[in-house]
Amino acid sequence: MDDYQMEELKIEGRNAVLEALRSGKTIDKLFILDGCKDGPVNTIAKEAKKQNTIVQYVKKERLDQLSETKKHQGVIAMAAAYAYAEVEDILENARKKGEQPFLILLDGIEDPHNLGAIIRTANIAGAHGVIIPKRRAVGLTSTVAKTSAGALNYTPVAKVTNLTQTIKELKEQGIWFVGADMDGKTMYQLDLKGPIAMVIGKEGEGLSKLVKENCDFIASIPMKGEIDSLNASVAAGVLGFEIVRQRLS
Amino acid sequence: MDDYQMEELKIEGRNAVLEALRSGKTIDKLFILDGCKDGPVNTIAKEAKKQNTIVQYVKKERLDQLSETKKHQGVIAMAAAYAYAEVEDILENARKKGEQPFLILLDGIEDPHNLGAIIRTANIAGAHGVIIPKRRAVGLTSTVAKTSAGALNYTPVAKVTNLTQTIKELKEQGIWFVGADMDGKTMYQLDLKGPIAMVIGKEGEGLSKLVKENCDFIASIPMKGEIDSLNASVAAGVLGFEIVRQRLS
Repeated sequence: MDDYQMEELKIEGRNAVLEALRSGKTIDKLFILDGCKDGPVNTIAKEAKKQNTIVQYVKKERLDQLSETKKHQGVIAMAAAYAYAEVEDILENARKKGEQPFLILLDGIEDPHNLGAIIRTANIAGAHGVIIPKRRAVGLTSTVAKTSAGALNYTPVAKVTNLTQTIKELKEQGIWFVGADMDGKTMYQLDLKGPIAMVIGKEGEGLSKLVKENCDFIASIPMKGEIDSLNASVAAGVLGFEIVRQRLS
Repeated sequence: MDDYQMEELKIEGRNAVLEALRSGKTIDKLFILDGCKDGPVNTIAKEAKKQNTIVQYVKKERLDQLSETKKHQGVIAMAAAYAYAEVEDILENARKKGEQPFLILLDGIEDPHNLGAIIRTANIAGAHGVIIPKRRAVGLTSTVAKTSAGALNYTPVAKVTNLTQTIKELKEQGIWFVGADMDGKTMYQLDLKGPIAMVIGKEGEGLSKLVKENCDFIASIPMKGEIDSLNASVAAGVLGFEIVRQRLS
């Protein structure tokens, strides 16, 4: 859980590496599978040359040994660790774009695939940033970076000590908090157009009591089947795009 | 791509494999020792052909590696952990509920976590079933079952040989096909209320050409960021719940 604190971050897989290069992220070194010359790998090598990145061609054994995800697809980039943003950076991001703030708060997501997918969704939905708690939650690991499909290069992620305290501070700035839970109003009936922060609970547990009490309203996704909750990253996508829909209309 | 196979039920040895084939059990893939042409193996190969089972001829090393019993006798069958439904069962499911059919077609999902999450979403969104192709896609493995959070016990999943053919047959029954892709109309502008099948493409590739050509319309999820596609299971959730919203309204 703590590997994100390492000084260097491994970015693995073709999409993730190419995105990192193109976004201008500093790559300290790029490892490419020796002899691998297919289209996507050539594109990566060209992009690396353009950026003056040091490239080292290595054998499969070396890549496998370096790999954390075991899905490197022939390329691993060593980058400076992903830096966390401040909450203020996220608000500034909204101001710069001249948009009402749209934030995503995660109340204890533990699965790096879910966190990565949510950061990816945040980017596509036009959210200005993601806020995660320091404790009992996954941080910005290389699996998160890979699953985010490059979104981590664009969408700021802030880490806070006390989520409830952050909610209170942001409320003072006029942001409304909508929590996703089963016992709320159907999301289509709520007005989600203003400055908003969407709060998604932990996998299998939902929102914690204190966070839920501090939400301005609770939105429910219609449940028409036998199962009682969506996967956390799917729920974030469904509620997140209901916010997008209302903002567009 | 091979890890999901390890989580499937392996049936090893000539008698066991032949029995499984003859009993009508769904075999996702059959491995036969390359060059092995004796009577019993020929009988198995013939039976597999009759059942449209995918056969792969492999070297002894590969079989030994796959084998758990170390007594494979030149044949190993990979069986689904869960039983597949027929497409007709899915339509019957809709009829029984007195609802317009709502189907989800997956055009080559490879990640078992995505397939599991989509079956979970299908259940909650009230879809009547999920259709997957036989080739180049993950089947119902134990990881899929686990990730579906129990939805696999309620939501039927059918596996078909030719997705395009299935689309054509279902169209004749009055079902409209909406594919998820970047270059379509924004999903909010489409009428998604009638009998519908939503089609989601492969991770990182999207819809295949032939499947896309056979869709009645293409729906796009609004993209407001730098990244160009959502995770496949998130996309299925976002488009799936737009269908739910329109049906509820």
